[in-house]
Amino acid sequence: MGFSGDNLKGFILALLSSGFIGASFIIKKKGLRRAAAASGVRAGVGGYSYLLEPLWWLGMITMIVGEVANFVAYAFAPAVLVTPLGALSIIVSAVLAHFILNEKLHQLGILGCVMCIAGSIIIVIHAPQEQPISSVQEIWSMATQPAFLLYVGSVIVLIFILVFYFAPQCGHTNVLVFTGICSLMGSLSVMSVKALGTSLKLTFEGKNQLIFPETWFFMFVVATCVITQMNYLNKALDTFNTAIVSPIYYVLFTSLTILASVIMFKDWEGQSAGNIVSEICAFIVVLSGTILLHSTKDFEKSPSFRGNYTPLSPTLSTRLCSGNGDLLQHEEQEEP
Amino acid sequence: MGFSGDNLKGFILALLSSGFIGASFIIKKKGLRRAAAASGVRAGVGGYSYLLEPLWWLGMITMIVGEVANFVAYAFAPAVLVTPLGALSIIVSAVLAHFILNEKLHQLGILGCVMCIAGSIIIVIHAPQEQPISSVQEIWSMATQPAFLLYVGSVIVLIFILVFYFAPQCGHTNVLVFTGICSLMGSLSVMSVKALGTSLKLTFEGKNQLIFPETWFFMFVVATCVITQMNYLNKALDTFNTAIVSPIYYVLFTSLTILASVIMFKDWEGQSAGNIVSEICAFIVVLSGTILLHSTKDFEKSPSFRGNYTPLSPTLSTRLCSGNGDLLQHEEQEEP
Repeated sequence: MGFSGDNLKGFILALLSSGFIGASFIIKKKGLRRAAAASGVRAGVGGYSYLLEPLWWLGMITMIVGEVANFVAYAFAPAVLVTPLGALSIIVSAVLAHFILNEKLHQLGILGCVMCIAGSIIIVIHAPQEQPISSVQEIWSMATQPAFLLYVGSVIVLIFILVFYFAPQCGHTNVLVFTGICSLMGSLSVMSVKALGTSLKLTFEGKNQLIFPETWFFMFVVATCVITQMNYLNKALDTFNTAIVSPIYYVLFTSLTILASVIMFKDWEGQSAGNIVSEICAFIVVLSGTILLHSTKDFEKSPSFRGNYTPLSPTLSTRLCSGNGDLLQHEEQEEP
Repeated sequence: MGFSGDNLKGFILALLSSGFIGASFIIKKKGLRRAAAASGVRAGVGGYSYLLEPLWWLGMITMIVGEVANFVAYAFAPAVLVTPLGALSIIVSAVLAHFILNEKLHQLGILGCVMCIAGSIIIVIHAPQEQPISSVQEIWSMATQPAFLLYVGSVIVLIFILVFYFAPQCGHTNVLVFTGICSLMGSLSVMSVKALGTSLKLTFEGKNQLIFPETWFFMFVVATCVITQMNYLNKALDTFNTAIVSPIYYVLFTSLTILASVIMFKDWEGQSAGNIVSEICAFIVVLSGTILLHSTKDFEKSPSFRGNYTPLSPTLSTRLCSGNGDLLQHEEQEEP
């Protein structure tokens, strides 16, 4: 229930991250539109003129800044706090789209925003405090505790089953296969990002952690997880509509990340039952708000901005990769 | 944050009340349908055959039982806890309508239900404990404290302005006039119902409160407030569609009741800021869920059950009166 200085830093960074990421989609979209207007060839039909458009690059930089802020936020505050706040980027992009791109937000979409905000406030109030970590070896001992190893083991087994059994069989008909792989992988990504972020934070504070092999191991895990996640997210986005992939991915990813964080960092240890139940309920509220915002965006179809609510893929590379892909994909869909 | 025995009793009574009231609408509706099928004359076009239908009377009794449970709940738990839980009756009637009357619930309506439940859980967890009251004079001193007298004074002035200035001018064009009068009056109704309920509870416990003039005064206030509220609720329902009146009324009524309770019973005194903010956010979530459930019920119009979400008028007589009126009105609307 307390709100430590580190939690506050993490909270502000998560808010900034959502602001930047939400804004980046609008800026990129404006860049794509301007490039299409200038060259007459749209990105969806093979044009690359957007690469000459400064606005598109500004959007890209905004997104990277947002992702870095998100990465650093994980070093300060528990994942139980940072991850659900990612939903706020959807609100930022919805509100900016409403005012800057003249995309009318459906009334129920506004309700969805209100719910995301109310749920986020409750999550922030009930966020657990983390034990201060003094070295990467401490994280290593958390990561190698039996309960978390069991989680990692189950995740890897599930991923293998999904990749080698279900993906060839029904990967292209069932949306849960590819998004499931991404989300399972994503929960490991966030945990390793958190471990790496914390060791880098300690290094910047003067306690060099780069001398420990554990730091490099976490770096390797981050790279592996993020690349796998990116690969399967692209497969999911190639196969299914973003409007279907995004909310499912957000729900699965956020739930699994919270589960992983609760196991590894024991976020809920020492918290009252009331606190934990409040957090879970608030998380459900944020998810519901997100789903509402997603499902109502098609109620009033607007000509050229169906892809503006896509900032749901929550790690750097996946978003760098999918963000652009989404927009291209959507541009394509809009051609009648 | 604690959950006393009295709070638990009040909570269970409020749940039972919502269950009974939610079910009563379905039973009454089934009775009306059966009566219409038997006599060939519908209630909306002047038939009174439903008065011979036992099912309709069963629905009426269920509703009275629910209202009594609601009344008693106020004697045990704070209004901040009991009032928002009234939203659960909407869920009960929506779910029962789905299964018994084969009214398909829209997917977003289900989301609305989920939100109402999540919000209610958070409200219940954070509900304040009430100081035990030992006599009606204690309530009297709460009701005559300057802050609450100021609230009552402002409410009465506002009601007079609405009744004598706005009602003749724009009562039939602006939905906020009649619903505003009802809601302002309603907040006083609930406070006096709570005072009366508590004194009756004390009387049953052996401490006779009927010897005090304060008890009779509260009884007089209950009667006056409820009759005025009933009168203006009927005006509102006669003038505007129930689908518009109900959610606005619910939002205004519940907000004003909580405000009145917080002033009179000092529900929030001694609570942490985090608790109060959580309660407010959870209340917003329940309101949003209610609005969502209401706005999506027209998405899939079904032939003869548009009035099933009406149990929003929260005190005995208003609901006894409006409940039936609603159904009649809706029956009427359904005639092409």
